[in-house]
Parts: sequence; C-alpha cells; structure tokens
Amino acid sequence: MANRSEASGAGRPTVGIVGAGQLARMSCEAASALGISTVVLAERADDSAAEVAGRLLLGGPASAAEMAALAQACDVVTFDHEQVDLSLVADLEEKGHAVHPGPATLEMAVDKGAMRRIFAEAGLPQPSFSVLEPGLGAQEAARAVGRFAGEHGWPVVLKAARGGYDGKGVWPLADQQAADEVCREARAAGIELLVEEMVAIEAELAVLLARDPEGRVVAWPAVETAQIDGVCREVLVPGRLEEEILDEAQRLGRRVADVAGSVGVLAVELFLSGGALTVNEIAARPHNSGHWTIEGAVTSQFENHLRAVLGLPLGATDPTAPAVASVNVFGGPDGSDPRQHLGAALAVPGAHVHLYAKAARPGRKLGHVTVVGEDPVQVRHLAWQAATALGTPVPAELSAPVGGGR
Amino acid sequence: MANRSEASGAGRPTVGIVGAGQLARMSCEAASALGISTVVLAERADDSAAEVAGRLLLGGPASAAEMAALAQACDVVTFDHEQVDLSLVADLEEKGHAVHPGPATLEMAVDKGAMRRIFAEAGLPQPSFSVLEPGLGAQEAARAVGRFAGEHGWPVVLKAARGGYDGKGVWPLADQQAADEVCREARAAGIELLVEEMVAIEAELAVLLARDPEGRVVAWPAVETAQIDGVCREVLVPGRLEEEILDEAQRLGRRVADVAGSVGVLAVELFLSGGALTVNEIAARPHNSGHWTIEGAVTSQFENHLRAVLGLPLGATDPTAPAVASVNVFGGPDGSDPRQHLGAALAVPGAHVHLYAKAARPGRKLGHVTVVGEDPVQVRHLAWQAATALGTPVPAELSAPVGGGR
Repeated sequence: MANRSEASGAGRPTVGIVGAGQLARMSCEAASALGISTVVLAERADDSAAEVAGRLLLGGPASAAEMAALAQACDVVTFDHEQVDLSLVADLEEKGHAVHPGPATLEMAVDKGAMRRIFAEAGLPQPSFSVLEPGLGAQEAARAVGRFAGEHGWPVVLKAARGGYDGKGVWPLADQQAADEVCREARAAGIELLVEEMVAIEAELAVLLARDPEGRVVAWPAVETAQIDGVCREVLVPGRLEEEILDEAQRLGRRVADVAGSVGVLAVELFLSGGALTVNEIAARPHNSGHWTIEGAVTSQFENHLRAVLGLPLGATDPTAPAVASVNVFGGPDGSDPRQHLGAALAVPGAHVHLYAKAARPGRKLGHVTVVGEDPVQVRHLAWQAATALGTPVPAELSAPVGGGR
Repeated sequence: MANRSEASGAGRPTVGIVGAGQLARMSCEAASALGISTVVLAERADDSAAEVAGRLLLGGPASAAEMAALAQACDVVTFDHEQVDLSLVADLEEKGHAVHPGPATLEMAVDKGAMRRIFAEAGLPQPSFSVLEPGLGAQEAARAVGRFAGEHGWPVVLKAARGGYDGKGVWPLADQQAADEVCREARAAGIELLVEEMVAIEAELAVLLARDPEGRVVAWPAVETAQIDGVCREVLVPGRLEEEILDEAQRLGRRVADVAGSVGVLAVELFLSGGALTVNEIAARPHNSGHWTIEGAVTSQFENHLRAVLGLPLGATDPTAPAVASVNVFGGPDGSDPRQHLGAALAVPGAHVHLYAKAARPGRKLGHVTVVGEDPVQVRHLAWQAATALGTPVPAELSAPVGGGR
C-alpha cells in the first residue's frame, strides 16, 4: 500500500479520520484499546474527538492539501461523516492511498438520488421515487412533484438529494400547495431534490454490518429504532418485532452491503410497512443505531469499523445479553451541560453513560446511555432514567407506539 | 474544592494523572467515554497514555512545579504508579487540591515496611516480617536476616522496602550465604530492606475494590492470578478455588481498603497458604489483576477509579459472564511489535486485544488479551492463543499448577 511505511512504520497501524465528531471520538477510544494510532482531521480544536485523537490536524475535507496531509499521515483514510468532496476522495485513491469506504460507496450515502437509482437497478425493495432533474426552476420542480403525486397519491416526501441528516432536508408534503412552498424555498437555496412515496411506517429498523476489503460481511442483530422528527431517540435490541422480520432485515442488509460495496461499517435504515421492509437510507460509517454495540455486543461497531478498514479479521457480533436499550442524550431547555449531571446518571444501576464533550445547547445530541440486561422493559426504563437525569427531555410521542413518527 | 472552577469550569470534570503508562492510557479511554477530560503528567512524549491524553504535560512527580501545574489543570489528581514524592503529594493536599489516593494510602503502597507495620496493628493476616533498621551496614543487615531466619526458618524472602514491582526487589534466600551476598549488593545500592517468612504458596489471589471519599466500597469478585518470577502472566475469573475462599478474600480485601483509607481502586494481592489467606501487597490504583473488568464486569476498574476519585457513584462490579481469562502480552525473543501481529490475534474468536503502544522489547509487558465466556478452560485457551499470536512466549511453568511460582 502506498505511503504505508512512511505513515506509520512497520507494525504501527494508523487510521486517519475525516471529521472529529462523536463517531470519531468513539472510534479513537476503540483504536486506543487495540494499540492502533489515530490522526483526525478536525475543523475545530475543540471538536468532540480532539481530546482523544492520537494526532490532530486542523482542516476540512474541502481542502485538497489538508486531505493529502491526512492521507500521508496514516495507512487508511476513513470518515466521521459523508459531507466530503468526492472528487478529492477519488484523487487520494488514485494516488495510491487506501480510502475506506471508497468514493463509490460514499456517493450512495451522500446522494440519495444516486442511491435510489443504484438500489432500483439492483432490485432492492424501496419506496417509489423520482429524482428531479438538476437545475429545475421552482415551478417546474413543484409540477414534477405534482405529477409524481398524481401517480402515487398525496402525501409524498420531498428530500434534499444531498446533505440531509437527522431529519434535516426531509419534507413531508400533504398537497400541491405545500409542494409549491417547499420547492420555492429549496430551489431558491439551490437544493437538488427527489420525491418519494410516503410509506405508512409500522416500525423503523436498522441493520448494522461490517464489510472487509475482500467482501466478507458480519452483521449485528437488527434493531428497532424510535425516530422523532427524523432524529433517533432510542434503539432497542432486539426490540418488539418478530424474529422473522429481524432476520429478513439482516438478509436485506447484507444485500445492500454488497450492492454498496462498502468497506467498514454500513448502517441500513429500514421501514416496516404492510409487513414488508423497504430501504430508507444508508450511512457508510459507524451510526447512532449501533452505539449499543459498545457494551451490548462482543465487538463494537467502532472496533469492527477499524478492523474492516485496516483489513484485519472482523470480530463477533453476538449480543452480550438478551436485552439492550440505548437512549440518546440531548441538551435540555435549560442549556445545562450533561457533564454537570453525571452523578445523577451514574446512580442509575447498570447505566453506561457516554458523553461526547460537546458544548451543550438545547436539542443538541450530546451523548447516549446504554443498559444491557435480561428484561427489555427494565433496560429501556433504566436507560431513559439515566438519559433524563442528564437533562434529556422525554418526547411526548414516545408514549405512542414506537415507529409512529417519521 | 480549591481550584475546581479554574481547572475545568462548571460541569466539565477533569482528572489529572501522574504518570503516562498503560494504566493511564486505559483510564483515559474510560474517561473519554464518560465525557471526562484528562490531563496527564508524562515523562516522555511517547509514553503509552500520550496518544489518548486530553492534555499532556511533560514532567515528572519529583518536580514541585510540574506537580503543581498538573493540580492547577484538574479537579483531582490521581496516579498511574506510586513512585512519587510523598511530601510533594502532601503539599498539594495542604494547598487545597483534591488528591486521591492521598499520601497516607500511597505510603502504604510504596513502602512495604510501613504497610506491614500498619497491617500488623490492624490485625490483618500477613506473613511474619521484620523491617531492617534504616542505614544498617551490609554485615549487620545480613546478621539481622540470619536472626529472623533463626526464629522463622530458612528460606526467607528479602524485599526492598521501596520501589519494587513485577518481581524486582524481591529475593528469596535459601541460607545465610545467600543473605550475605544479597545484603552486600542491596546495601551497596542504598536499598532499605525488610525480611519476611517464606510462605508455602498454594495459590495467588487478587481482590480489586473501589472506595469513594465517603468510604463506600464496591468489590469485584476475587480472582486467581498466575505469577512467574513475580510477574503476573494470567488472571482467571473466578479461577479454580473454592467459593468460600474467594468470599473470604473479598471480605479481607474490604478490611484492607478500610485500613488503607484508599480513595479509588485498590488491588490487594493475597497468598493462599495452608488453607489460610495472607496479604502479600497492595496497589492503590488500577492494577494488572483487574484488566479483565473492561469486558468481564459491568463496570471496569478504570471507570470506577475515575468515578471514585471524582466522588461520583460507583458502578456495579458483577461479572458479565461465568468465566473470564485475561493473559498478559509480553515482547517475544525476536523483539517484534505485537501490533504487527494484530491480524493473527484478532482471528481468535472472542479475543479482546489491548495493546499499550509501547516500544517492543523482549520480555516487556506490551498488552493483554481478555476472553469472556461460559467455559473456564475454553476462555483460558483462547486468551493464550491470542497472546501467543501476538508474540508472547508461553512460560514452561504454566503447565505446573497455577500458583506454584513465587
């Protein structure tokens, strides 16, 4: 591999990570345990991963020079997020650097239109969709949405083709008037769009897989997730769905991983609708739906991501207990830092608290809590108890059946 | 607490660690997960913990200025090792800094003579001993050893009062001639000595406890350790001893923790001899005999050490599986770096590999491997398989009953 010896010397594997959010932070924790060195390309010196990065490079993925400096300093480049310049990533690969996942996989994760087209060709189950022609005016875009709705019925879901996450860039549209309004704003902002049928969601699931450069795949058990306003609030393992559906989800996840050709961890988010599964979206990196694996599985998603991108054997994905619940920690309305409330959270029996050392703001994702045990009701209760002790507001929607929100 | 607000600001707990070895490295990994910041006082910029320290201060525990800088930068000072200047530690405490464990506990851990005297006063079971008068000439020292042997019989064990670890500073003496030789060398080097009866060791055990500033104690299950030439080679949980003995070990550990007045993790090493337990030595910090707790217990020793020194509630110490084996990784005779062999070790099912990113040298402790499972024979076998894949030589003594070496 080009530059390997320069980067790290024999026997000292070094992983470079683009972006320094909490995914990079938890990856660095896993790397440290294995004696793997890390170099992190961070936008800011106080980003979440800065405290535990082996080495910190200040810079961003839009700079060819900064990306090249990162690649020179490591054996393999990987990612904390997909908001990168794919042509720069492709350049690194052409120059002989190992980059995992590669640009083709990243494009599917970053461009929902590209993903839908490729998955359609592969015959993967997904909602009906139409990618709006790039550069359309607002009125033409709204008319295209109207035509799609004429075929599939209102409501529909309009999506930004790129850059959306955590519910941003996703607009459920009830009628043509809503379509007109959202298309006007989105096109004025230069946002390219696709439109999808609105799936009647019975439940949301996620399958997490790790795939190595030779195409070997391991999959963790499928999990049930609760999203509110597009943001993941809790993950339940195995959740409340039938085993048959969870197994089918895992099989579908393996097909997606092969189509995506991903190396590293791949998260596949699925809808259960009318008893059938459809692919919602993918992330080609460790993912919020897999934080439970740190304590709840033999090998965590962070460790297997590192093992996969370095071409090391993948670890076992078996759960360590019959029931696992993982609840996200969000900044509460008072703006207080959850680190102030560590004592209250750690008083909850069995609560594994993870805080990301990010500046607290109301509604900002600041950590998560995992509880493993025998009883699914009990672990969920305890995880929420610790998360609320850390300041997380309890969403009213959670009393409704999980999966009711989009 | 003095300097708390200066150090870290409200809600941002920061732990300062004296020394940057693997114990500090694994403490930093645990701190990162909890969102706790770390400042590490490291002798060298490439010490084991340097890669994951939140902040690195170069310096050592012999410098008042460097110790003061560390204390200024954190909420509480704790330790990677006990080779510190106790008067400087006491100074920090007097100036209002939180230091855990405090100087009284550290003295017991660092000065075997002080420990023996205090434990004798407390009525704790331990070998007969005699602390040699400081400053004795070599001949007088050898005569004192001879008098002790006259009372308790040869062989005896001569120990350096301070600074011994991993079998260094411990000399089994068969007769007066051996005593003459060792006393000559030791006293020429200025080493102060104590002599102890040679206990017929049936097994070696360790009890790990965490004690908070209010004196609340949690204890992990007692474990069986295999030491060869004074160096820990493997830890078996629960090991092959009767439950009654393990329970008695835990009770004895709790008495020791209270006598030592420790805050943080305390490791108590015990001998089983003639069916009875005696205290061998203590360490007032996370300890090699507790590395299994990272995967093998609900809360690891590193996390509970941080929780204890910060005055946060202590976590559960229950094992996560019926059987755990942890085997140390040592540099092999070829001097190769175990990081070169990561792939072979990770191919062993269920092997949790921990490497300390230290320069490889034959015989140097470079990591450990833990396997958890149902069957004690199987987990031990797998852990050794991974450790040998990383280059660890298998000691011939291990075919003998565990506990046979001193």
